[in-house]
Amino acid sequence: MPRGSERVTLNEVAPRDGLQIEPRFVPTAEKIRWIDALSRTGVAKIEATSFTSPKAIPTLRDAEAVMQGIERVPGVDYVVLVPNEKGAERALAVGADEINLVLSASDSHGRANLRMSAEQSLSRFAGILEITRGSGVHVNASISTAFGCPFEGAVPQRRVMEIIERLLALGVQGISLCDTTGMANPQQVATLCGEVLARWPWLPLTLHVHDTRGMGLVNAFSAWQQGVTRFDAALGGLGGCPFAPGASGNVCTEDLAHMFAQMGVETGVDLARLLAVAEELPALVGHAVPGQVVKAGSAERRYPLPTGSG
Amino acid sequence: MPRGSERVTLNEVAPRDGLQIEPRFVPTAEKIRWIDALSRTGVAKIEATSFTSPKAIPTLRDAEAVMQGIERVPGVDYVVLVPNEKGAERALAVGADEINLVLSASDSHGRANLRMSAEQSLSRFAGILEITRGSGVHVNASISTAFGCPFEGAVPQRRVMEIIERLLALGVQGISLCDTTGMANPQQVATLCGEVLARWPWLPLTLHVHDTRGMGLVNAFSAWQQGVTRFDAALGGLGGCPFAPGASGNVCTEDLAHMFAQMGVETGVDLARLLAVAEELPALVGHAVPGQVVKAGSAERRYPLPTGSG
Repeated sequence: MPRGSERVTLNEVAPRDGLQIEPRFVPTAEKIRWIDALSRTGVAKIEATSFTSPKAIPTLRDAEAVMQGIERVPGVDYVVLVPNEKGAERALAVGADEINLVLSASDSHGRANLRMSAEQSLSRFAGILEITRGSGVHVNASISTAFGCPFEGAVPQRRVMEIIERLLALGVQGISLCDTTGMANPQQVATLCGEVLARWPWLPLTLHVHDTRGMGLVNAFSAWQQGVTRFDAALGGLGGCPFAPGASGNVCTEDLAHMFAQMGVETGVDLARLLAVAEELPALVGHAVPGQVVKAGSAERRYPLPTGSG
Repeated sequence: MPRGSERVTLNEVAPRDGLQIEPRFVPTAEKIRWIDALSRTGVAKIEATSFTSPKAIPTLRDAEAVMQGIERVPGVDYVVLVPNEKGAERALAVGADEINLVLSASDSHGRANLRMSAEQSLSRFAGILEITRGSGVHVNASISTAFGCPFEGAVPQRRVMEIIERLLALGVQGISLCDTTGMANPQQVATLCGEVLARWPWLPLTLHVHDTRGMGLVNAFSAWQQGVTRFDAALGGLGGCPFAPGASGNVCTEDLAHMFAQMGVETGVDLARLLAVAEELPALVGHAVPGQVVKAGSAERRYPLPTGSG
């Protein structure tokens, strides 16, 4: 079996990508407590909030308070989503380690989700990058619908390659390929990730997959086989896409960390600690979540022999 | 990416492996209607029932009536589980195409589940094979806990290889490697399946995985990369193991068929037809089931653009 890297890193996106579509506002103090607990699980990054307009995403209207309230644990990078120049200024003001920009590879999804075509997003990013230049903040761009669009269907690989090229020319330092509505399959993931890493071997490339059709883990595995070492994931499998509702959201952090651990791939994550945080998640968001390992326990779990057997 | 075979076949095990641990008895007429519907989905095999004692598995107490009531669709093999010589005689009497024997690689699991060590199971199989010899029925053996035991933990690969050798010496014609409690990971699956196929390249080898820890699809994918072409799966992800309760049961047939279809691998399955049968499953068993594609729709699904966008 082709093995990828012996070490991967996880970016916990639930506080932003998960809470963003939750119906309930999680009180700021609870968010801070939660992010502080996640900071001690061994994840490399946490996407903590979004500097969007409070009207657009009311559940994240406390972005400054969250960023100012959390403990910044050394070794963890705190990422914030930034949609425009104003957001970039807010992110710099709170000292975010990384800014994440989002655009859609498919214009129909871009217009539905961001009210912008990819071309419009790229112009806007140019303005944002002028603001961040010299600040030391790392700028990543997430390409939504990189593996398919729920409105248009297939997104040509060439289109994704061209967008990456444009982003890098603008000064973006990292790229996330996002399977926004869970349309990717492991063959497609291998092909696109393989091509991107062949062309830009130095690129910090992150895979962001959803488990909408149960393929979150297999897609991550396939990307890992191609050399991808960075993965977005959400605690409990929170998240989703409002335009393609389904059974599940982002790939589940604890299930992904567990898979890599079982394969002998180092994630830096303390699984027991992560599971302890995951156990509190249904209470935090007020509903059951789709994560599996938190229910079944790790594959290391041993059961007592039933009485009467033997 | 290493691609496996361009064609795989699916064995639908829900009528036996799924119903076996359901609390409710599904009336015989409903079972027959359900199996008849499954027969027209393009699966290669259906494990239809078990010729066990009605006391041991009361939900399958109608084994003869089911086998006599179903329509035997040409091209579909109807498999029955057989625990002993009496079961073998009953299976031959109803003209089963294939008999599936089960033993555990780990003795503690074998004693808990079957009240037999592997050695005792092998002796019993010798008696069963005397009965089936010359009948033309295909005899497969399923090795439970081949990837780990919920009581003992790791099961040495050498142990599994030895059991396969013994089974083949007895005259068994096919082997299923079973991850009974969802402990396998894709590295382990690749290693064991790769070794088995390297030693017995002609062997009809089936992978039987559970989704207990979310790794059902990734483990199937990993086995496929090694050359495995036969997969057990249960509609809706029914099933599980009473000794290791968790979030989920067998890998879900429609999710597995969907993954292969998306990868361009032929399964013979008509996904729309399979999804139609899966949609009726919660009503049949009286509870929700964990399958994802039936909820989210195929990755081919297109959504209308939200009004106001564009």
